[in-house]
Order: sequence, then structure tokens, then C-alpha cells
Amino acid sequence: MDLNGVTIDDTYAEAFPTWVSRVIITAVTKKYAYNAAVEATGFATSAIGCPCEAGIEGFVPAEETPDGRPGYAILICAGKKKLKAQVVERLSECVLTAPTTAVFDGLPEAEERIAVKLHFFGDGYEYQKEVGGRKCWVIPVMNGEYVGEEDFGIVKGVAGGNFFVMGENQMAALMGAQAAVDAIAGVSGVITSFPGGIVASGSKVGSKYKFMVASTNEKYCPTLREKVEDSKVPEGVKAIYEIVIDGVDEESVKNAMSAGVKAATKVPGVVFISAGNFGGNLGPFKLELKDLI
Amino acid sequence: MDLNGVTIDDTYAEAFPTWVSRVIITAVTKKYAYNAAVEATGFATSAIGCPCEAGIEGFVPAEETPDGRPGYAILICAGKKKLKAQVVERLSECVLTAPTTAVFDGLPEAEERIAVKLHFFGDGYEYQKEVGGRKCWVIPVMNGEYVGEEDFGIVKGVAGGNFFVMGENQMAALMGAQAAVDAIAGVSGVITSFPGGIVASGSKVGSKYKFMVASTNEKYCPTLREKVEDSKVPEGVKAIYEIVIDGVDEESVKNAMSAGVKAATKVPGVVFISAGNFGGNLGPFKLELKDLI
Amino acid sequence: MDLNGVTIDDTYAEAFPTWVSRVIITAVTKKYAYNAAVEATGFATSAIGCPCEAGIEGFVPAEETPDGRPGYAILICAGKKKLKAQVVERLSECVLTAPTTAVFDGLPEAEERIAVKLHFFGDGYEYQKEVGGRKCWVIPVMNGEYVGEEDFGIVKGVAGGNFFVMGENQMAALMGAQAAVDAIAGVSGVITSFPGGIVASGSKVGSKYKFMVASTNEKYCPTLREKVEDSKVPEGVKAIYEIVIDGVDEESVKNAMSAGVKAATKVPGVVFISAGNFGGNLGPFKLELKDLI
Amino acid sequence: MDLNGVTIDDTYAEAFPTWVSRVIITAVTKKYAYNAAVEATGFATSAIGCPCEAGIEGFVPAEETPDGRPGYAILICAGKKKLKAQVVERLSECVLTAPTTAVFDGLPEAEERIAVKLHFFGDGYEYQKEVGGRKCWVIPVMNGEYVGEEDFGIVKGVAGGNFFVMGENQMAALMGAQAAVDAIAGVSGVITSFPGGIVASGSKVGSKYKFMVASTNEKYCPTLREKVEDSKVPEGVKAIYEIVIDGVDEESVKNAMSAGVKAATKVPGVVFISAGNFGGNLGPFKLELKDLI
Repeated sequence: MDLNGVTIDDTYAEAFPTWVSRVIITAVTKKYAYNAAVEATGFATSAIGCPCEAGIEGFVPAEETPDGRPGYAILICAGKKKLKAQVVERLSECVLTAPTTAVFDGLPEAEERIAVKLHFFGDGYEYQKEVGGRKCWVIPVMNGEYVGEEDFGIVKGVAGGNFFVMGENQMAALMGAQAAVDAIAGVSGVITSFPGGIVASGSKVGSKYKFMVASTNEKYCPTLREKVEDSKVPEGVKAIYEIVIDGVDEESVKNAMSAGVKAATKVPGVVFISAGNFGGNLGPFKLELKDLI
Repeated sequence: MDLNGVTIDDTYAEAFPTWVSRVIITAVTKKYAYNAAVEATGFATSAIGCPCEAGIEGFVPAEETPDGRPGYAILICAGKKKLKAQVVERLSECVLTAPTTAVFDGLPEAEERIAVKLHFFGDGYEYQKEVGGRKCWVIPVMNGEYVGEEDFGIVKGVAGGNFFVMGENQMAALMGAQAAVDAIAGVSGVITSFPGGIVASGSKVGSKYKFMVASTNEKYCPTLREKVEDSKVPEGVKAIYEIVIDGVDEESVKNAMSAGVKAATKVPGVVFISAGNFGGNLGPFKLELKDLI
Repeated sequence: MDLNGVTIDDTYAEAFPTWVSRVIITAVTKKYAYNAAVEATGFATSAIGCPCEAGIEGFVPAEETPDGRPGYAILICAGKKKLKAQVVERLSECVLTAPTTAVFDGLPEAEERIAVKLHFFGDGYEYQKEVGGRKCWVIPVMNGEYVGEEDFGIVKGVAGGNFFVMGENQMAALMGAQAAVDAIAGVSGVITSFPGGIVASGSKVGSKYKFMVASTNEKYCPTLREKVEDSKVPEGVKAIYEIVIDGVDEESVKNAMSAGVKAATKVPGVVFISAGNFGGNLGPFKLELKDLI
Repeated sequence: MDLNGVTIDDTYAEAFPTWVSRVIITAVTKKYAYNAAVEATGFATSAIGCPCEAGIEGFVPAEETPDGRPGYAILICAGKKKLKAQVVERLSECVLTAPTTAVFDGLPEAEERIAVKLHFFGDGYEYQKEVGGRKCWVIPVMNGEYVGEEDFGIVKGVAGGNFFVMGENQMAALMGAQAAVDAIAGVSGVITSFPGGIVASGSKVGSKYKFMVASTNEKYCPTLREKVEDSKVPEGVKAIYEIVIDGVDEESVKNAMSAGVKAATKVPGVVFISAGNFGGNLGPFKLELKDLI
């Protein structure tokens, strides 16, 4: 296959279930909502070494938020038990502490619910109030009153949607990955949790060092192309970036992969697009590249 | 005391020792160094609920980095044991994974050292190389080669330097806090780890709810001024923000407090500056506001 | 009238016809499209002293641009003759010179057209090519090939839609204006051409100094409230910002005013919203605040 | 010559005298100073088609500004007569209109002075006041009071300092140019006036079309390498970006060129650095690349 002159590998991304919470963070202006969203989704690239995977889904205009203020939707993804703890911690430490913020459930239709009880921080001075049809707790704090919903929906979503952007040199691959991330930023229901949305060092499970659970994926390392057997680096490829996508459902992840792959192929010097899988035995989701373009 | 028409409380900030690591993250352009620095310092506002306190100290121009590329210095602060684990995790997950990054020790003179052994990720393909006089490990990865120093200095620094910006209304206090944070961004050796550098909900130790280790500091809550005894909210104050500063030494934290207080008093509607302490029994550092202006 | 506790003056904004061109600027990534859009719309706040009024309408995702790359739509507003000259100059100097850019007509349905002949820059090496169904010229340049459409629609739009955000102090008014601008950024068909979208110094026609065509509007100056007759500054108002909106049609300008006014009233310390007019004798558009909320 | 594996052409940049004004714009926070600086320096890439050349020199911390607030220094460059008119227009339309701004002379030692009389906007309500040792005018405006110095130094500076970043493909050249611009941002006394600091389409004087004063410099167009005689595109080069620098003196421009060239050579895929001149007959400044590295 070929798109805009770039070869599209006949393969698929293998993805996994994850539990997902969507939190709407609002504030007095867009900037202050953004600051809180950035802090709340940091140190959350990969479930391997971080306590969860998290990222900013997108801006939510004032007309669409319960309190009529500008906001950002974030997604937090983890196993079910860890998810609740992480939502509690990240909202407590990174949003309740941020200027003028309020939080609202971004999955009000979800059947599964978690309780995110921040109101105990109020030490008895807290009280309940309805805001935009949502039951909220109000906590007196130093900058006035913090407002937050505490009943959050969670859904079984999809983690690990992915594709590889391969370039004739490093900067071409990087700009291809950047264009992909720019495009995915406009797709609803997804995040790209790695730094700036781009992965520079994909990993394989296991290592020759027994204490390591994961290690560099040498078959995708361009500098090892001539040194390892079965290298998967196509001839002429000097750098590879992976875009990893988590989302609220398979459809959203597919939309993101589609938008990202198309965008990457528009960048001069991008020569090959592939995707990562483990032979299909592990993840229940097989997202074929050929279905996306 | 009075500065630019703003009352400066005759009190002091009480601060505590902490261990600090400074990491220089470089990348191909300023933007990609910044992306990695933001991810690596997220979810790190307060040691109470986050695994560490962390933030961006500042931009480091290409002339001053070991590899001659643009960089950002970040500070990671925690107790000694936790500090090593957090530096390892945050560099592994948020910097090694980021496009084109390299990391270098930002405290080469420090006597105490920690080993941050990321090179095992190389699965045997890693090798050593000197870069700008620093002993580094090179790890083959998907986007080429990751380069990183692994021997990092740590110093006993100061956590919890602070001051309160109080305003005649919420937006005046917020812009006062913002001006303070803008000014502190230019001071070397310090970070402000909260979202955007500003704390909206300062806490006291303990709570009427026994399972809570900290709770809202009702004496500093403007909406509770008439409801609690001994409120510390001055008459006419409608909102308070706290700026919390961690730094590599007492001098840096004082410089930051000084720059921040001066800047805040320039903002119309800021009426009172104070600082937080616990009576002086807990923290060994007493940073008097009157010495700073 | 009252909205979210803020008084809405029973008055209207008086607006005027203007000619408008919409240019879609695309580039390899969002950032490079943005850089060109910022440069091309600078020094363009007010037709009184700038050669035109211009601003960024919004981001255009890759799926919606003719060449499938990320873009920004800008609006350039002026009298008919000046408009053509300004579009030519601003595209020549600020977009053709910018990395990887292409330009496309953003008003393909418009009957009135202007020719924006940049291709002569090609010195004979230029050639024609179709891109996304648009007839373009390709000009060999240093970074490869510049691509641009040269036939642009223009429409008779509306300039000078406006409202005033008044606050109990300066920072409240400023954050109210900021929230308004944040909200308007999401409305299609409009721009706010002043710096950051906010006007700090509204003017009246004429002056006691005969060589000045415009001067400070003393009736809206809070510091002159007690010194001038017929001050229009309500009691308790300490600062006023004006939001000025240009758009492709009356409906878009109304939508922007509506979104902006609603957003401003959400900001604590904003106490009064009004709008500017000249008694209705000059501009054919009378945009009543009461119709917007 | 060779730097970091990149060939440095044995040539020089030819630069010209220009008159320069430096304006310090301060505001309540860094962001609002920046917004005004961006607007005031827009539509100012090249004196050929813009009314002047202008750009942001850099951030000025609160401790270094006359009014103790955060600021940005901008440079405005033009012929002597045009310079005064442009400073007046740009400050009137883009800074006086911006929230909370003040302006100060950034060249107080300069012997040549221009008068920038904005105070007539005050319509008789203006008055004089000293701020930080500077004689200023205060103009009552809608957001309170605008403060500005009106006596500005100008110096004979240098325009057209430049170098070319050539890459094995477009993205390598672009990131090389970006790294150069990032580095130059830290050099005092200079600006890079083109969009984002980077020129994609360098020009030569004249054209086969007689009405064009400038046209594409075909000898530097990679796509024309095989089609024109005496192409200056080295073998293997697929894209070229030019960095153009204006500054307050020759030393500053040299420092900027040096920092930029060094930074560009660090980017993988950058293969050749050159500079533009007209044989040395036109510009009095000959800035040799070999003296810079």
C-alpha cells in the first residue's frame, strides 16, 4: 500500500483494554485550566513505569462545560483499582491546588462509577451545591471556593493503539510524528500520553538483564540494522518514532490512527509507516493500517 | 512594613530540608527539550500526595550544556531514598522516551551522588562515550541513539519556602501570584512545583476526619473569615494564593521569595503579603519577609 | 438586565461594513502555520493607524485544508482598494517567506474576487499545478517549492462589533476580557484584531489637538469619572476593557459578542457590560446586547 | 572548514547600516507584555515590502525595567525618517492599546534621539510623572492610566547579517534553522525579523518582470539545481533556509551569527552552512563565517 508516496506496511496495531476516566477541568480562563491539566497528566507516559497513563484530550469551550467556563478534558487510564486511586491523587494534588479550578465528570453516561471524595479536605466546612445540573461539593479554600463533582464514570477503553513513523533521517521522522500528533489532537476520545505525544524509544518485553521487565526493541533500532537478525528497519530508514494512543473506545483510537497516519505521510522525508503488535496473541484489538486509509 | 503600598506582614516562612537532584535535559530544539521537561516534572506538586516535588528551573542555552544543544534544567526534590527512585523513574519514562533527548548531571560539584542506571534498557547494545567531558551511556533506540550521564549529584536543599499573596478580590490576587511566578522563573536554583507555580488551597496538618493527614487551612479561607476563630485573613482580603518554593540552598530560596514578593506588590489590587510557618518548631529555616525587601 | 449577577447595559454596539479576505495558511506542522499567521496579522489592530485590521480566525485541521496539512485561517479587513494591496503585501512578506507554507482562498463561494499574483516572484521559473481542486502557482524557492492559490474571494463583512467589560478593579476587568477573548476564539468567522484581542484605550473621534483624528474617550476613563461631565463609568467601576470584533457577516459578529459577553460575566469582579455606539447615525449595524444573552 | 561534521563555506555575509530603536514594553505579567510586543513587531519582516523590520529582542526581567514590572525589548529598524514614523505608529496602535502596558526607551545612552509624542492622545487630560528615573507621560485611558516615555534613543545599527542552513532534506534544514533561531533568541542586541525567525524564500535584486524589484534567488533553489547555470546549491542539498539578523551593532550581529551557526551544525542532516553577499560592493559590513566558529 501507498499513501502520498509513503509505503504503508500491511500490518496491524495490537491494543489492549484499559479503564478510562475523563475529567473536565474548568477555570477562570483557558490558561489556568490548561496549567492544571498539564500538571495532572504529567509523569504518566506508560503504565510500565508510571502510576497511570494520562493526557489532555482537548479543549472544551465554555458553552459545553457545566459551569460555563473554559475547560480541558483529560483522560486517565489504568487498571480498575489503580484508576480510582490515581484520579483521587491527581485531582487532589494537581487540580484542587490550582487557581480557580472546578472539576466535572466527563463520562456522565457510563454505568461504572467511581467515588472521588475530595470534599473531606474541607474539614467540615464543605457543603453541597448544584452546578449546571451536577451535584458538586464546595470546599472553602484560600483562593475562595473550590467546586467539584465527585461521582465519575469510567469505561473500558483501549490502550496501546499505535503506529510507527519512519524517516529517511531523524528530523524527517520527527516532523512526521509531530504532524501526526497535531492531527490527533483534534480527534475526540483519545490521548497520546508520551512527552509531546511522541515515543522515541519503543520497547520489547523482557531483557537479557533479568531485573528488567522491558528493554530497547533492537529490531526497530536503525543503528543496529546491520547488527541484529531480522531487523524490521526498512532499507533507507534512519529514524523511527512511535505514536501511542489510548482512547475511550476502539472507534476513537481508529480515528486517531487514521488522522495521524494521513498527516505523517504529508511530511517530506517520511518513507514508511508501520505498526506494532505481538503476533496477535495478547491484545484483543487488531487495528489494521489498511482499514484506516 | 509597606512595599509599593502593599502591607508586608512581620512574619517568616518556615522551610525544611529536602534532597535535590538537578537534571539538564537537552534536545534538538528548545521545544523538544521543554516537552520532556514538562512530562518529567508533572504530578509532582507536593510531597504529601505526589511521589516527589519537581519543576522546571529554567532554560539552559546551548553554550552552557555539555552537548551544545538547547536544554532545560529541572529540579527533583524528595527524601534521600525516594529521590533516587524518582529520578530513575522520571528519566526512564519521561525523558528516555522523548524525541532526541540527552540528560546530564546539573550538580557536578556535589559530593553526594546517586547512580541512575538507565543503560540496562540497552539490553546489551549500549556502550559508553564521552560527551562534553561527561561520561555517558549511549543506548540504541528507535529514533537513533539516546545519550545520558548516569552519575548525578544531589544536595541537601530547602523545601517549603513560601509567601502569601492576598488581594482585594480573586483576580487581583491571581495576577499578583502570576507576576510573582513570572519573576521567580528568572531566579536560578529554584522551582515552584504547583500547577503554573501557584497554590490555591493551602493546607494545615490534620483534620477532624481522622483518615486525612491534611485539610483546608480554614484560618486562611476568606469565605470563612467570619465563621472561624482567629482567622488570619486581613480585613478586605477576598482571595489568597500561596507561592511555594523549593531550591538547592537557602540563598536561592530567599532570592526567589524576594523577587516574587516585589513583583506581586506591583499588581493593582494586591493588598497584603504574608508567609506561612508552624511557629518555628518544625523547620530549621526561618525566612523573614522583612529581610527580603 | 442581569446575567450571572452582572448588569448588562440596555444599549447596542454600532458596527460598520468592511471588506474581508480569508486566507488559509498551511504548513508542515501546526507551529509553522501559526508562526506565519502571527506575522501576517501583526501591526493590524485598527484601521485608524494601521494599514488594515487582521487577526487569526482559528485553526483549520488537516482534513479541512486543500492540501491536507494543518492550517490557520486569518481574516484581513480593509476598504476594497486597500484590501487587495494588503493581502498581496502580507502574503508576499509574511507567508511566502515562511517555512513550508502554502496559501488557499478561504472564501471560495464569494462572488467578488481579487487577484493576488505572487507568482511573478518566481522570475519565470514558476508553474501552475492543481492542489486539492484549487488552481495554484508553484514558485521554486530556497526551501523547495512554495505553493499558493492566487484568486481570492472577498465579502462585505462587519467591523467594529464591540462590548465593554467593566470591573471593580483592573485585574477583574482584565481577566473578564481574557475570558471573553478565549470564548470568541472558538467562534468561526471572526477576529479580535487588537493585541491579545483586548483594547485598553478606546478612543473617540477628534481631539482638542487639531492634528489628532482620535483621542482618549474621557467619558469611559475611570480616573476621570469625577472630573468630566456625563461620565459613562458606572459607580464602583475601576477599569474598562473593550473587545472589538470584525467578521465575515453580522451573524458571526453577533455570535462572537454573545459568547464573549457570557464568558466575561463568569469572572468574579466583573460588574457591568456595555457597548459602544455613536448614536446610531454612522454604522448601519446595531447589535443590541439584550438580543445576545 | 568543518564544524561538528558540517561544511562551513569560506564566505561572508554582507550587511548594511540601518537605524534602530529599542523599546522596552512592560505590563502587569509577562504574558501581557508579550502580547503587545508580538503585535507591535508584526508585518515587519523585510524593508523591501514591509514598513520596517522589527522583532522581539528578548525578555527583560522586572528587576531591570524602569517600573519594576516584567517586560520585553523590541527592536524597530528602518531608515531614519521612516523609523520615527514607525515607532510612533506601532506604539500608538499596538502598545498604547494593549492592557496594562508602559513603554520605556531601551537606548538611553544614544546621542541621537527621536520624539514619540503619544501624549496628545490624552486630549488635555495627560500629565507628566517620573517613573524609575524616566520622564513619562501619563494618559488616562479606559483601563486606568497608560504610562510612557517619549524620548527615545536611536543608533546606527546593522541589518542583513545572515547565514544559510542547508540540509540533506527539508526537515533537517528546517530543524537546523529552528535550532539556530533558538540560540539567537538568547543573544542580546539582535532580532530575526522573519516569521519565526526563518526565511524560506531568499531573494535577489531585480527580475525578468520589470515591475518586480526582487525575485526568487534561483541559484539557491534546490529544485532548479540542474536547470540554472552556476547554481550555488551544493550536491546533496535539498533545502536551504536563511537566517537574517538585524542588530544594534556589528558585534551583536556577529555574536548572533556565531551562536546560530554553531547550533545549526548540531542538527542531524544539516550538511552545509553558507552566507549571502553581493560581492562586497554594497554593504560596508563583511561578516566572515570563519571568524565566527
